[in-house]
Amino acid sequence: MSARPVIALLTDFGTRDHYVGVMKAVIAGICPDAHVIDLTHDILPQDIRGAAFTLAAAWRDFPAHSIFVAVVDPGVGTDRQAVAARVGDVCFVAPDNGILDLVLSAQPPSGAVRLENPVYARPTVSRTFEGRDRFAPAAAWLAAGVRLEEFGPAVSIPRRLDWAEPSVHADRVVGHVVHVDRFGNLITDVQAEPWAPRLAHADVWLAAHGPIRLVQTYGEAPPGALVSLFGSTGRLEVAMVGGSAAHSAGAGAGAEVHVTWRA
Amino acid sequence: MSARPVIALLTDFGTRDHYVGVMKAVIAGICPDAHVIDLTHDILPQDIRGAAFTLAAAWRDFPAHSIFVAVVDPGVGTDRQAVAARVGDVCFVAPDNGILDLVLSAQPPSGAVRLENPVYARPTVSRTFEGRDRFAPAAAWLAAGVRLEEFGPAVSIPRRLDWAEPSVHADRVVGHVVHVDRFGNLITDVQAEPWAPRLAHADVWLAAHGPIRLVQTYGEAPPGALVSLFGSTGRLEVAMVGGSAAHSAGAGAGAEVHVTWRA
Amino acid sequence: MSARPVIALLTDFGTRDHYVGVMKAVIAGICPDAHVIDLTHDILPQDIRGAAFTLAAAWRDFPAHSIFVAVVDPGVGTDRQAVAARVGDVCFVAPDNGILDLVLSAQPPSGAVRLENPVYARPTVSRTFEGRDRFAPAAAWLAAGVRLEEFGPAVSIPRRLDWAEPSVHADRVVGHVVHVDRFGNLITDVQAEPWAPRLAHADVWLAAHGPIRLVQTYGEAPPGALVSLFGSTGRLEVAMVGGSAAHSAGAGAGAEVHVTWRA
Repeated sequence: MSARPVIALLTDFGTRDHYVGVMKAVIAGICPDAHVIDLTHDILPQDIRGAAFTLAAAWRDFPAHSIFVAVVDPGVGTDRQAVAARVGDVCFVAPDNGILDLVLSAQPPSGAVRLENPVYARPTVSRTFEGRDRFAPAAAWLAAGVRLEEFGPAVSIPRRLDWAEPSVHADRVVGHVVHVDRFGNLITDVQAEPWAPRLAHADVWLAAHGPIRLVQTYGEAPPGALVSLFGSTGRLEVAMVGGSAAHSAGAGAGAEVHVTWRA
Repeated sequence: MSARPVIALLTDFGTRDHYVGVMKAVIAGICPDAHVIDLTHDILPQDIRGAAFTLAAAWRDFPAHSIFVAVVDPGVGTDRQAVAARVGDVCFVAPDNGILDLVLSAQPPSGAVRLENPVYARPTVSRTFEGRDRFAPAAAWLAAGVRLEEFGPAVSIPRRLDWAEPSVHADRVVGHVVHVDRFGNLITDVQAEPWAPRLAHADVWLAAHGPIRLVQTYGEAPPGALVSLFGSTGRLEVAMVGGSAAHSAGAGAGAEVHVTWRA
Repeated sequence: MSARPVIALLTDFGTRDHYVGVMKAVIAGICPDAHVIDLTHDILPQDIRGAAFTLAAAWRDFPAHSIFVAVVDPGVGTDRQAVAARVGDVCFVAPDNGILDLVLSAQPPSGAVRLENPVYARPTVSRTFEGRDRFAPAAAWLAAGVRLEEFGPAVSIPRRLDWAEPSVHADRVVGHVVHVDRFGNLITDVQAEPWAPRLAHADVWLAAHGPIRLVQTYGEAPPGALVSLFGSTGRLEVAMVGGSAAHSAGAGAGAEVHVTWRA
């Protein structure tokens, strides 16, 4: 384990309130050497899908032994379970509400437990702020070297949400926009991997817009042009050179994207 | 003292400008081992009350020996004083403009000084940015082990602002919304402590809305219901399950909340 | 070099997406001891000028041996070059698109290289996210002690953008608003340095507003008054006491500011 174990935080808590700060305070009290990295706290309130996407897009770029705390938790205080899972050489701490769906379907966990052991939670667990009282302490104790199995009984974490998969047809693949980033880039669920050999003869369509040129880099097209390319997470994106594709095309999460094969 | 003393920052500087970054740069130059935690920088510009609430809601969750720098300072460059105060085993560095009112009335300081010693400030103190030139250096020197008494003469820090207290009547307690959080939860100044035995027979009213059910957890009511509960800071909150109470009830800071006792 | 080398980040990536978090993850993987400070990630998308101003306003406040990563990069994937430059005892890592113009014209670099050595980049450099794949790794390797000259061949970094300089006339100096900060303060390109002896007999005009009183501190004028003063970066600012000068005067970046000398 690194001298300074990394704990990555992803929440929908925003940055106006004290919620994120006190999660970090709790971590500092338990594991002063932990190196906390904010993944984002600006997930839309209670948007579990957006959180799942962001986690899936980011986690492979983190160092070995990183610990991810993902708290978008509309069911806090209900019977949804608080869990921790080991995936490869990193761990995730989260509610089992679907926020881990995309990570766990890409790579099954080698272990998962329910967070039950009161030794590794705050003495009183608030019914409304388990981020502070249960999830942050669990991550800090993991960072401090406590083994996953100490936190509670083994569980399996079911997939919770429906995720439309791209559909494959003779002449096309049909996917969906799953995230709109700050620049207005429309990121889809179409991965480069199986289609690479055919992309030289492909066109991309977004609703009424198309064919949209498939490029390697923004510089291949003039400012104001819609382009599509496989972006930094290996997913097909629709972008506007020097502008916002989301704004220009009037499209957002859920919009269909067609990749068509030329005869 | 911990190996990595914690310095918590709370300002209204936002995150668009370089102001917070250079405060951290100054701290890193003086005390490289300091572990800086952002409490928030999104206090509304010059909202001393909001800052005082946030500080009061958060400080008890921090590790021993933490140092809080709270800079919401519309009077920068006037004769308001820059002070530091020891409260229990933590310290606060701030202007004496009321930002510490709620902390100090909850727990009186065991020492307070005026920040006057030029050795522990930047050589030239800007008239408009004492966050960089006076408050951040003071916190960093405290973190580096300088004793509070070295910073200047002892002072007493008076309460500066009017804070309406909940009023207690035969059949009710009347408090006020003091903070609206990111989720639209309405957090009040009614604390759980003295009322716990009577809450099983209480109703909550917010302006024209009521009775609002007093629950232990959001899961006890259906989505869209207004509920009230004692939240993570021990204060009565009015919330909407799966939504924004502030938006739904059209209420914000200052709104009256009534807790009524059933006969 | 300090025990914890400082890496300062400035981008237009915002905080909603995972982009900044994965840059920090990459840094942590290469140089776990690096102390990362966010300068800002809220530069307007692709606003190279705003980034250049913020960098110039902040860099002198950082400790010796700090490393700045500045990524506002509309030309990512084109033939603009990725460079690193040593300026005094700090280093800058950035695209050569003008983002370093103001720093380098204030203090010429003692060395500059093109980032070409693949040893110090990620194995695959994405065409759309060099922040993660080239700039963050370069900064982390610099922080880890790799010499600037190891990264690639020496280059000279030309000034890229037109920067209007204040014009000097017999009876006035005419400058421009270059930044509007969170408080609505209008920060100009007029520096205090050469004019100090004459300021006691100066008036300030902002478009139709004036004369605006030149003060030492906000406290010299009543709430609601427009004032001008030399702010924390040594530049002339127009501010409103207890309010927003930008809102009140209807002025923003590019607006002319006149400093006139009284006879």
